[in-house]
Amino acid sequence: MKTIGIGLAGFGTVGAGVYENLERHRDLIAERSGYGFAVRRIIARDPKKQRDVDAPSTLFSSRWQDLLDDPEIRVVVELIGGTKDAFDLTVAAIRSGRIVVTGNKALLAERGAEIFALACEHRVPVFFEAAVAGGIPIIQSLRDAFVGNRIESIHGILNGTSNYILTRMQEAGLDYPEALAEAVKLGYAEADPTLDINGWDAAHKAIIMAALAYGFWVDPVSIRVQGIDRVGAADIHFARSLGYSIKLLGSIRANNGRVEVGVAPTLIPLGHVLASVNGVFNAVAIRGDLVGESLFYGRGAGRGPTSTSVIGDLVEAAHVLGAPRGTYGFSSHGLYGRSCPADEIIGSHYLRLSVDDKPGVLAKIAGLLGEAGIGISSVVQPESIAGVETPLVLMIHEAAFGRMRETVERIRALECVKGDPVLFNVETFS
Amino acid sequence: MKTIGIGLAGFGTVGAGVYENLERHRDLIAERSGYGFAVRRIIARDPKKQRDVDAPSTLFSSRWQDLLDDPEIRVVVELIGGTKDAFDLTVAAIRSGRIVVTGNKALLAERGAEIFALACEHRVPVFFEAAVAGGIPIIQSLRDAFVGNRIESIHGILNGTSNYILTRMQEAGLDYPEALAEAVKLGYAEADPTLDINGWDAAHKAIIMAALAYGFWVDPVSIRVQGIDRVGAADIHFARSLGYSIKLLGSIRANNGRVEVGVAPTLIPLGHVLASVNGVFNAVAIRGDLVGESLFYGRGAGRGPTSTSVIGDLVEAAHVLGAPRGTYGFSSHGLYGRSCPADEIIGSHYLRLSVDDKPGVLAKIAGLLGEAGIGISSVVQPESIAGVETPLVLMIHEAAFGRMRETVERIRALECVKGDPVLFNVETFS
Repeated sequence: MKTIGIGLAGFGTVGAGVYENLERHRDLIAERSGYGFAVRRIIARDPKKQRDVDAPSTLFSSRWQDLLDDPEIRVVVELIGGTKDAFDLTVAAIRSGRIVVTGNKALLAERGAEIFALACEHRVPVFFEAAVAGGIPIIQSLRDAFVGNRIESIHGILNGTSNYILTRMQEAGLDYPEALAEAVKLGYAEADPTLDINGWDAAHKAIIMAALAYGFWVDPVSIRVQGIDRVGAADIHFARSLGYSIKLLGSIRANNGRVEVGVAPTLIPLGHVLASVNGVFNAVAIRGDLVGESLFYGRGAGRGPTSTSVIGDLVEAAHVLGAPRGTYGFSSHGLYGRSCPADEIIGSHYLRLSVDDKPGVLAKIAGLLGEAGIGISSVVQPESIAGVETPLVLMIHEAAFGRMRETVERIRALECVKGDPVLFNVETFS
Repeated sequence: MKTIGIGLAGFGTVGAGVYENLERHRDLIAERSGYGFAVRRIIARDPKKQRDVDAPSTLFSSRWQDLLDDPEIRVVVELIGGTKDAFDLTVAAIRSGRIVVTGNKALLAERGAEIFALACEHRVPVFFEAAVAGGIPIIQSLRDAFVGNRIESIHGILNGTSNYILTRMQEAGLDYPEALAEAVKLGYAEADPTLDINGWDAAHKAIIMAALAYGFWVDPVSIRVQGIDRVGAADIHFARSLGYSIKLLGSIRANNGRVEVGVAPTLIPLGHVLASVNGVFNAVAIRGDLVGESLFYGRGAGRGPTSTSVIGDLVEAAHVLGAPRGTYGFSSHGLYGRSCPADEIIGSHYLRLSVDDKPGVLAKIAGLLGEAGIGISSVVQPESIAGVETPLVLMIHEAAFGRMRETVERIRALECVKGDPVLFNVETFS
């Protein structure tokens, strides 16, 4: 198995997460991708700083130029943020033939045209899944999966901090300053949350998606970007009474040969799925001329989700560098290899019976369930409705399906039970 | 630009759609992928049959073996369905070194182990995005985007026909036979919908996703597969009164080294996003150890969505065959190339003002809007609430943002208006 050398610029939340998760899931990633990944150097402003993720001190350096001195480094992961050093590093890496993986939305939104022109010239790919919506594979979907579609529109909840604040205003009735303070306290907002709440973080992401969908870079100064600081508790209240939820929405729409791009607080009908995207979650709705409506939902920030996207890009870089498609993604990674027999799967159940309308019926049924060690969480004996003579509905606590099935057979054999019992699953996703 | 020869086996809804859309979006796909695609032969049971998509009669043949006689055919697209000829064709194509793109879920679920072992042996990729959930890029996401994650669970609404029937039972109060008849009439169910409603279509898809996530093929006979034919109007009613929606749910979960796979009607809490997936739509929720909760939503069947996935796979095949990553997905495809100035974007708006509580105020404001040719769709003058002295909320018909902005400036200048007006967007996604 070949190993690909990586230079990691930036060791904050995401950079340290990439390092940690490449280590933790080394075998899994190797088996799935056919390649190993070795971080050969880490750039950090203060290499001596105490961190929650350990890496050998010999890997650290404070000069990004050091990444380019090591010919074994084939991929540069740019996670330092900002648009100055990050730009210089990206350009230098491309010129030296390194593949670049970046999560830097501001850099791409402001200087994407230059960066990708240079990348094309040098035939070096730049991957940037982590730059938009953290762990949601929206870049890959737009670029690869929907390659045969004309994109009609993209609407996205693209900033988790703003969405958390708006959600708390809506659900807990907080006013804007209270919700912002809570977000800062819980670590969902930076100490300086300016770019999150003024809409520009979302705007950078919208500009990147628009570029991918429409092939040109929208000038950031030409678009409307409105943050959430004018959203008051009163607006949340009025919007709701009119049937809407207020979200910070990035909107991209093709209209008569021009592309409309903007970010603003937006009233969304409560019935639309984007209205239900709450807390720090992000979501992107894409309409394509062939595929119709699609929606992608997930965590838009944080160590795990964002390093998921960086690692996905690293594996794509490996494919470009000549990795085989290996086992085509089918990999047991030593953890699994057998399925659980259906009868041994434990779950909650819904059981509907038709019964005689006589005293003692429930006692008999509950008795059989009790003998099998199966608990009842609730019983509903609704009014008879058309087609069901005397219905009895039981919600059943967790039990192995096989035991449940056998017990239902015994219940069916009771004289007071008519016809075939109906047994479905209950899934609470807990 | 190089052209990749394709052999297309099957010219039904999906096959004809692939042919049609490769033609229709030829330039777009070429610009984005860097490659052209030419269908060199089409296999159809009755080559002379009248069809709604035209293809030159010289392309048609009834023997799948003919695809393998043409050395220019580098990719075989298998859309004939069934597991007999489709298996023979797939195996022969792999042995001859052709890349296979397939949408055949039954084939993979039943014989995936053999097919992918052969594919590994011959180092020939088999792509199958179209086999699971039509236009939702779930295969690519599981295989590539989440390559660094241990998958904890996958829950999916995987069969549009079943979901349409359950949705109509829930929304329109239809009984099962009525809803099924309606689905057949509208073309959402086949004349023989057995595999859809007995759960096996969903089970095939669950087996494929489980294989991708856990690296082995679950034996179809070992899992529980329960269809929707026992779901009655009464169950829909009782479930709802208990706070649940009934969905045909494919469930895959890793649990103590074993993988639980099954398909059954399942009660889902009304607040969970899967409970809101209605009609013919599909959705898949994935939980990964790094990425957390993700959800993918879209059309699971039909010509456009499914050919989207086949075309995506064809472009991926082109990359394997040596296509450059071209313009990295950035492509203007001659349609767009400029953005719409913010002031010219037309949309609906929400306007909140603080006003003097005097007669004639609304008339003045409405007058200014009327002069600008901007219509009001509703006016709410709510009770005063904390922080907003005398609020006036207007929902505004579609208007250009620039005109709206200027008019709001004029409204702000009115003596009866206090403080800064609040102007947000309204998006109805129509």
